[in-house]
Amino acid sequence: MVVDGGSIITPKGFSAGGLHCGLKKTERHDIGAIVCEVVATAAAVYTTSVFQAAPLKVTRESLVDGKLRAIVVNSGNANACTGQQGEADAYAMRAEMARQLGVAEKDVAVASTGVIGELLKMDCVQSGIEALPLRLRQDEGGAEDFTQAILTTDLVKKEACVSVVVDGKDVIIAGAAKGSGMIHPNMATMLAFMTTDANIDQAALQQLMRQATDLTFNMITVDGDTSTNDMLVSMASGLAGNQALDSSHPDWAAFAKAFTYVCQKLAMAIARDGEGATRLVEVVVHGAVSDHSARVIAKTVVGSSLVKTAVFGADANWGRIIAAVGRAGEPVNPDQVDVQLGAISVLEGSRPVAFDEEAALVYLKGDTVRIFVDLHGGEGQATAWGCDLTYDYVRINAAYRT
Amino acid sequence: MVVDGGSIITPKGFSAGGLHCGLKKTERHDIGAIVCEVVATAAAVYTTSVFQAAPLKVTRESLVDGKLRAIVVNSGNANACTGQQGEADAYAMRAEMARQLGVAEKDVAVASTGVIGELLKMDCVQSGIEALPLRLRQDEGGAEDFTQAILTTDLVKKEACVSVVVDGKDVIIAGAAKGSGMIHPNMATMLAFMTTDANIDQAALQQLMRQATDLTFNMITVDGDTSTNDMLVSMASGLAGNQALDSSHPDWAAFAKAFTYVCQKLAMAIARDGEGATRLVEVVVHGAVSDHSARVIAKTVVGSSLVKTAVFGADANWGRIIAAVGRAGEPVNPDQVDVQLGAISVLEGSRPVAFDEEAALVYLKGDTVRIFVDLHGGEGQATAWGCDLTYDYVRINAAYRT
Repeated sequence: MVVDGGSIITPKGFSAGGLHCGLKKTERHDIGAIVCEVVATAAAVYTTSVFQAAPLKVTRESLVDGKLRAIVVNSGNANACTGQQGEADAYAMRAEMARQLGVAEKDVAVASTGVIGELLKMDCVQSGIEALPLRLRQDEGGAEDFTQAILTTDLVKKEACVSVVVDGKDVIIAGAAKGSGMIHPNMATMLAFMTTDANIDQAALQQLMRQATDLTFNMITVDGDTSTNDMLVSMASGLAGNQALDSSHPDWAAFAKAFTYVCQKLAMAIARDGEGATRLVEVVVHGAVSDHSARVIAKTVVGSSLVKTAVFGADANWGRIIAAVGRAGEPVNPDQVDVQLGAISVLEGSRPVAFDEEAALVYLKGDTVRIFVDLHGGEGQATAWGCDLTYDYVRINAAYRT
Repeated sequence: MVVDGGSIITPKGFSAGGLHCGLKKTERHDIGAIVCEVVATAAAVYTTSVFQAAPLKVTRESLVDGKLRAIVVNSGNANACTGQQGEADAYAMRAEMARQLGVAEKDVAVASTGVIGELLKMDCVQSGIEALPLRLRQDEGGAEDFTQAILTTDLVKKEACVSVVVDGKDVIIAGAAKGSGMIHPNMATMLAFMTTDANIDQAALQQLMRQATDLTFNMITVDGDTSTNDMLVSMASGLAGNQALDSSHPDWAAFAKAFTYVCQKLAMAIARDGEGATRLVEVVVHGAVSDHSARVIAKTVVGSSLVKTAVFGADANWGRIIAAVGRAGEPVNPDQVDVQLGAISVLEGSRPVAFDEEAALVYLKGDTVRIFVDLHGGEGQATAWGCDLTYDYVRINAAYRT
């Protein structure tokens, strides 16, 4: 089901590319595009921040008809809080990309990520977009250039690719994402882009994205801060040749599961690459009064600065886990909570368990730390992902802009 | 109005003391008491965490009749998540203190702060309480010993004292507090203790505490984590000789203002002494649709890890302030927001203002950083306090328990 070495160009019909145009101070790629050779069925979810960056407005407009041919993305500058000039710049990015590709403006989406409140250097953007068509490739090199072009403080690229059988045909679903700081998505995420060659009903795609986002991108946090530029955009080329997917299709469940899997892989990759992070933290809550309640509690625990610093220090300080559960604002019976760190039980029925501190230290020094909380209060469950809070997080953010 | 050198023993009728009994690893004081020579009118507010520590249960019981003679407090161990043994230990602390002072058990409140999930060393507590009566003093030395005995990771003691005229008589209001980490009070605070010699109706005192707490202790955050042990307890000796205060008393407004001032001074002192902090951050929001809305926004900004690290780095990154305002979940018109750092305007009508980066750097390197946000959307206003997020916060919390 997982396509080894797969990327956003693996689904039929897609090419991608990226290059350095001068928006980043270093020579790293800072502008890129994904292009579909046919008109793709498309959908997007956006940040809930009241300050939505200019490119989100432009992308919303392009997506009114649920169709896209291309997405152009720059990093190094978020084009957020930039007023009317910022909007004009986002429209200009769209227009230039459409002109270069010979497609309608309304078939191009625009995304930006980077510093807030500075105007885009449009000469750089212009020259970058002019050079992009020659850099678009339908091979791994093109996908690599694109995934590099969307990164900011990220250390690694994030991508995922799976295949699923629909109507007896192989359908591919792939995604690429960026995100490392200002990560606390709410009904959307940092920048993420998905491609599939599935033939799928637009409304079904939009609904699936919302559902999958709630379980994946909306369940990660690095620092509790929601970006002005969060956006997830999907394009479906339909070239796999399956009957149009919607929730009445017999293979819908398999497709939805595969789609959600890609979202989850990208979300976990963002959490693991959180600014300064040394460890991925996964918090699994069972026994809540509802799934919603479990989600709130899981996100509260994984977002606690005190839990995050304890994980960084490999300190089995379960008192901080309990403190986070207790302040989440959700119904919890304080006398019947179990907590496990990996396979090590540290609290049963809200009573401390004598555990092997040495074994806990070894476990907490691992690459991934799993915290299990069972509230014994119902059937609700959820999983959230985050990372530890380290000296490097402070270093990176104490002088990001300067 | 401010009483220079005043402390919790300045109001008539109070003595205090503290000593080292062995709960802290170093020779710092770890148990203390405040005692009133008459039966004081008393009230308390508590953490909203569902995990309330054992001493809170005992204190609630003592306060059923709204009267207290004494408060006994230990640091170094929170006696939280300690089950039935923890409750028995808290009752034993109360009983022993009552016996030593020759007062009724129900007239003694108990508070604890420190590590969660470990049983109290009751031999230390016992010997400490036995030694306390001889250490109680009606002078600054006694207050100093008490304020030291309640500290954990705090670097400095926190106290405040004011006088206000009621019925032509000088009434003194004083307070002491501790708190440095796990600070995000919600309807209560970290440990804080207030004394006054005012004659005051118990219901009026309780209501005033709730109101003052909402404007002060509930408006600070260090790390977004609400403690299991938060508690504010006030004792009023009545020895000032004024007519009983309630909201119909002609001097009520002056008294309430003075009381709130003491709460605010203590709350600001806790924020300034936040774990690892180098600067106090004050966020003032105007023009929100309501005071409640302004409070939510002010607390969101002051609690943002990205704002906190930017302040640490003296980086005038107003984009992070806007990002926090935008995700607060409150009504905001995204086109008419002003932001000032001290006297330096950086955003007007949501448009960036060209400002003197050098002047901003100098301002942000100061001891106190004030962030003003005007939403131009109504009459709501609020002030919140916090601190910067530094390497030392990570260092302190990566290995707190070990």
